[in-house]
Amino acid sequence: MGLSRRDLIARMAAIGGYSAALGALGHNALAATFEPLQLAANGGNGKRVVIVGAGISGLVSAYELRKAGFAVTVLEARERVGGRVWTLRQGDRIEHNDGTTQTVEFDQGHFFNAGAARLPSHHLTILGYCRELGVELQVLVNSSRNALAQPDLARPPLLLRQAVNDTRGHFSELLARSVSRNSLDAELSGGQRKALLDFLKVYGDLDSQQQYRGSVRAGYTRFAGAGDQTPVQRQPVPLDQLLDSNLLLPLVFDEIPEFSSTMFQPVGGMDQIPKAFYRQVKDSVRLGAEVLGVETGEQGAKVVWRDRKSGQQHVEHADYAIVTLPLPLLAKLPNNFDAPFRQAIASAEGDKANKVAWQSPRFWETDFQIYGGLSYINHEARTLWYPSDHLNSAQGVLVATYNTGAVAQQFAGKSLQAQIASSRQAVESLHPGHSHKLGRPLVVNWSKVPFSEAPWIVHDEVAQPGYDTLNQPQGRTWLASDALAHGGVGIWQNSAAESARRVVGLIASHAAQTTRGAAA
Amino acid sequence: MGLSRRDLIARMAAIGGYSAALGALGHNALAATFEPLQLAANGGNGKRVVIVGAGISGLVSAYELRKAGFAVTVLEARERVGGRVWTLRQGDRIEHNDGTTQTVEFDQGHFFNAGAARLPSHHLTILGYCRELGVELQVLVNSSRNALAQPDLARPPLLLRQAVNDTRGHFSELLARSVSRNSLDAELSGGQRKALLDFLKVYGDLDSQQQYRGSVRAGYTRFAGAGDQTPVQRQPVPLDQLLDSNLLLPLVFDEIPEFSSTMFQPVGGMDQIPKAFYRQVKDSVRLGAEVLGVETGEQGAKVVWRDRKSGQQHVEHADYAIVTLPLPLLAKLPNNFDAPFRQAIASAEGDKANKVAWQSPRFWETDFQIYGGLSYINHEARTLWYPSDHLNSAQGVLVATYNTGAVAQQFAGKSLQAQIASSRQAVESLHPGHSHKLGRPLVVNWSKVPFSEAPWIVHDEVAQPGYDTLNQPQGRTWLASDALAHGGVGIWQNSAAESARRVVGLIASHAAQTTRGAAA
Repeated sequence: MGLSRRDLIARMAAIGGYSAALGALGHNALAATFEPLQLAANGGNGKRVVIVGAGISGLVSAYELRKAGFAVTVLEARERVGGRVWTLRQGDRIEHNDGTTQTVEFDQGHFFNAGAARLPSHHLTILGYCRELGVELQVLVNSSRNALAQPDLARPPLLLRQAVNDTRGHFSELLARSVSRNSLDAELSGGQRKALLDFLKVYGDLDSQQQYRGSVRAGYTRFAGAGDQTPVQRQPVPLDQLLDSNLLLPLVFDEIPEFSSTMFQPVGGMDQIPKAFYRQVKDSVRLGAEVLGVETGEQGAKVVWRDRKSGQQHVEHADYAIVTLPLPLLAKLPNNFDAPFRQAIASAEGDKANKVAWQSPRFWETDFQIYGGLSYINHEARTLWYPSDHLNSAQGVLVATYNTGAVAQQFAGKSLQAQIASSRQAVESLHPGHSHKLGRPLVVNWSKVPFSEAPWIVHDEVAQPGYDTLNQPQGRTWLASDALAHGGVGIWQNSAAESARRVVGLIASHAAQTTRGAAA
Repeated sequence: MGLSRRDLIARMAAIGGYSAALGALGHNALAATFEPLQLAANGGNGKRVVIVGAGISGLVSAYELRKAGFAVTVLEARERVGGRVWTLRQGDRIEHNDGTTQTVEFDQGHFFNAGAARLPSHHLTILGYCRELGVELQVLVNSSRNALAQPDLARPPLLLRQAVNDTRGHFSELLARSVSRNSLDAELSGGQRKALLDFLKVYGDLDSQQQYRGSVRAGYTRFAGAGDQTPVQRQPVPLDQLLDSNLLLPLVFDEIPEFSSTMFQPVGGMDQIPKAFYRQVKDSVRLGAEVLGVETGEQGAKVVWRDRKSGQQHVEHADYAIVTLPLPLLAKLPNNFDAPFRQAIASAEGDKANKVAWQSPRFWETDFQIYGGLSYINHEARTLWYPSDHLNSAQGVLVATYNTGAVAQQFAGKSLQAQIASSRQAVESLHPGHSHKLGRPLVVNWSKVPFSEAPWIVHDEVAQPGYDTLNQPQGRTWLASDALAHGGVGIWQNSAAESARRVVGLIASHAAQTTRGAAA
């Protein structure tokens, strides 16, 4: 017999009971909103701004500067906008700078977010832009309790729901035992002891002897059904098996604000965000324009660039420049920045990351009830990331490797074939008998992607004092980047957008001052 | 019936522990799939089945019986199919049996799932039908870490992410302290002690002194941003405030398999499921047909019904009948069932539940970053349930009361105006200054919905011995209902579908036997 909704609530009410008084209170600490940039519409007064790079920083800068009356030119080396916000679909090509080329062979309608793939709920700025620009969002499932963890390849994978709830159960039992033995009497009053024991009983699903003997929360070995098909719950995993440091990431990851529910992705692929900005600023953007050098001064900036198709060189003169290149690439670009600034740029080191994606029948849904979310494996592939789009349909795109750091560096050193084989091996370990269904693999090694060469910089943000240095202008040139804004945990389109908005605000007030100065 | 391999392994697991069971089952312990009913396409041989009720049980029965070659008639009292799967949209009417009428005034495109509103991932049968019938699903967010809990109305609400993570932090600290004091040495070896302490440090986010001083997992009071906007994390809530039994439901609810991620809803409203079945069986369904009596026998069944428009009475004779009426309503229907059967029917008592829904600008998203999920309040409204459709758009439907049991009974005793005012009060308590934005309220009191009169029966399923009694036929009449299948925690379309499939299988084999008997 299952536990009914009513029983559940009754059990909890039995301990404390609901009271009824309604008090007065205020809690602005919980409220926060997206604030549009408040710039005068004609503040720019036609002043020219050249922007290097059409990733999120560049696109947000262009969008806001145009609204404020600046004349904007965006120079983008690639034939697309978005930078590391890169969605791959049928017919797209992946060209690594080691000369390998892959063509996407997914069926129509499928996509692979090779770079940015998640939007957290508290990223007010990027979500605000999605609202403003009409980018339709859907839930990105970052955590499914039916996903798996395989901390030890010699044992079968664990259901995440079992890892989560058996850990909680065992810890609750141990804590209840300690309390009962009076070992925490220095910390707890008699009333607190009783309250804690009562609480732990439900919190950890302990039996009347305060023992954890498994919980329906850990899942079923037999699902409930008609006739005599009562549900059967899973036997608890022994504590020893759970105290594995490789389980900590799956137990902690989805509690971090940047990775917890609710998360989003745009319907149809993450590049719907850069595309939405692009529609607003299209006539300011020059694609295929590779920047060769930046010269900044007190009156303006000069950017030399090359048309990658024709090979012709051009010079763009502007009142202001915003440079959004990845810092390790900017370090190699001829410029006239001063020494501390160049040193700060050089301090930023590119990190490593890889993804391997496949098209496949959705065996993870039909056979394992995993709809979105991530499985974790102690294998160089590290992560299986299940699709959140078109749930419960026939085919889907499974990201079956997402690794970073030192493991990623080693992984990217292998041939594409070896990376693909490794990814398939991880799938076979988590989903035995199913990896043969995977097809049309794609490998993205961010260290080999031209004009990016890294997924982000090590430690996500530039460390101090470089952070402050690079957040100041050099003459009339500013930098904007996710690496030059605080992002919380991880790197984000939101930080890139906020960095851009800050720079736009500074340029707008500089322009207003110089206009006033000229008028005076 | 012999003991299945699965049963055998479940018994072993009970005796020998987890690893023995896992060893025997291998990875299959994690795998399960939807199995289509395997009935001969012409097994029904035109035999007639009358089905009372076009909820999920009735629709699944009709769909499967037609595929197996039976001649099916479904009698449904309402002018729609779906029963308690009821989605309300602009222009729809709510007629309570106390004479009140409400008309839905939502803008086009908005909907309110007044009844069933969630699909869990492991409900293989209903998800299998969604796949088979092309019902598009989207994620139903049942848990947002940005949602709120207000266990004590005299205090401001807590962020759920803070309640969850501060609880874990405090408990980890207390447990670490006990371990350090050797109070668990009877349970733990020296190696285990060290492993546990290392684990708790990360699991609970303890500092180097093994103290919990708050965690970024509990959320921010200031979000990260550009320039000098470093993120600021929340100060921990004191343990005393967390040891509130009213917090247990929010801390436990989304760990129950039936309520944990990933959950679904059909795009556009839950009634897309009954509508999909209806498209398959439409010419078998008679709407507005109120059943007045059932007479069953060894050779067939007779159902008397009334056309609610014309008032005319009709009699339907069939080889078999399937009755899916809510049991408390069936108890009042004239029938010739035997005494134990009638007694078992009478043992089922209808429970209570109410929902109040509003259309509103999405202040919970723009101002509180709550996208889907539930907030919990110690107030008769009990629950705020935020919409999972059209996230990050302008307007949405907020369910700002969902209560059950005794509280619901009292709530439904009030006038509609008083219920609406109470719902608004709960919103104001959780989201001060915003409740004036709510408009176009709708109240559904399930005890007053004609032809339902309850959301489910008390304890979800009929208790033994009634469960077994009612799962046997009376003559040629079978019952099918969510109350006559095991559902795990809660009541579900999946259980209704499984009850129906079981009955269809029994009727098909009965029909095959009698056909063979006649041929012999």
